[in-house]
Amino acid sequence: MKPYNVVINFESGTLDPGKRIIRKVSDVKNMFYDTQAAEELIQKGDPMVYEVIYADVPEEQGHLGHCTTIIYPGKIGNEYFLTKGHYHEKLSTAEIYFCLRGQGRLIMESTDGDCEVLEMFPGSASYIPPNWSHRTMNVGKELLVFYCIFPADAGHDYATIEEQGYPKLVVEIDGKVTVIDNPKRKNK
Amino acid sequence: MKPYNVVINFESGTLDPGKRIIRKVSDVKNMFYDTQAAEELIQKGDPMVYEVIYADVPEEQGHLGHCTTIIYPGKIGNEYFLTKGHYHEKLSTAEIYFCLRGQGRLIMESTDGDCEVLEMFPGSASYIPPNWSHRTMNVGKELLVFYCIFPADAGHDYATIEEQGYPKLVVEIDGKVTVIDNPKRKNK
Repeated sequence: MKPYNVVINFESGTLDPGKRIIRKVSDVKNMFYDTQAAEELIQKGDPMVYEVIYADVPEEQGHLGHCTTIIYPGKIGNEYFLTKGHYHEKLSTAEIYFCLRGQGRLIMESTDGDCEVLEMFPGSASYIPPNWSHRTMNVGKELLVFYCIFPADAGHDYATIEEQGYPKLVVEIDGKVTVIDNPKRKNK
Repeated sequence: MKPYNVVINFESGTLDPGKRIIRKVSDVKNMFYDTQAAEELIQKGDPMVYEVIYADVPEEQGHLGHCTTIIYPGKIGNEYFLTKGHYHEKLSTAEIYFCLRGQGRLIMESTDGDCEVLEMFPGSASYIPPNWSHRTMNVGKELLVFYCIFPADAGHDYATIEEQGYPKLVVEIDGKVTVIDNPKRKNK
């Protein structure tokens, strides 16, 4: 395999050449607390929530997967637009989120049940250690753009988060970013 | 281990909190073609060539090492300021260099003897596959700043490059960035 460049645009978040995956409200409706508000938004045109653009890398140990993520500004009910969130299938692998634009939050839960929330802002590089699931939200009024790097053999487990959610929700209350307990969270 | 943020300054290249390593001309003099010009520069104050600022990460498989590198503008003879260059001790590991500021070149050589040179510019994310050594040069008039991510157990082998150099040199000829054969390169 030869070395190669991809080019990342700090404003738009495009990664070129890359493979783009788009997620509309209909793709992530089960991740939100207010499922009725999600259904209404789907009826009103099903807007884009986020995009991920992957660079081409073999999914093998020793390689590094890398992609950009672009989360649009928006809310469903009072909950900010968010990514599905996932554990790595190979739990012993870390990930880094390097924020290039916008304002976000990164919520993580460990397999031990600890929950942490970090702020994302231009220049923040968030270290997600092995055994921590991760989800991001755009809490600002412009795009949230970040660059993600992970061991290429990490794999994605979306099902666990889709079923159990996070212990906390990141919502807007009186115009402020607020972290509250998740009323729907099932005890483990 | 808990998740954490470091903050990277796109202009200065600082990574905070981080552990800073500095390299002056005297630290890298053996890497340059014109060793006499290097000695003269050491006598004239031994200026800084580059800095690396490492985030704190366990050097274990599954973790990701990350750091910024800041190369100052300058030349020794007609050869641009450069990093020592290294293979990973664990050859089967990749690395990514994400350029934040300035103009650079990334020279790589594979264990098969192939040599490649990529351009670095703001937004370029260079993929260094497993089994390729790597060295960078600042070919511009301002700082070259880039963010590096690598498997935390990769390790550094500087000795191989210090001994054999690269097949090519990146030099300035008539004010232009030029890649020439390295007259000092020993056949493998």
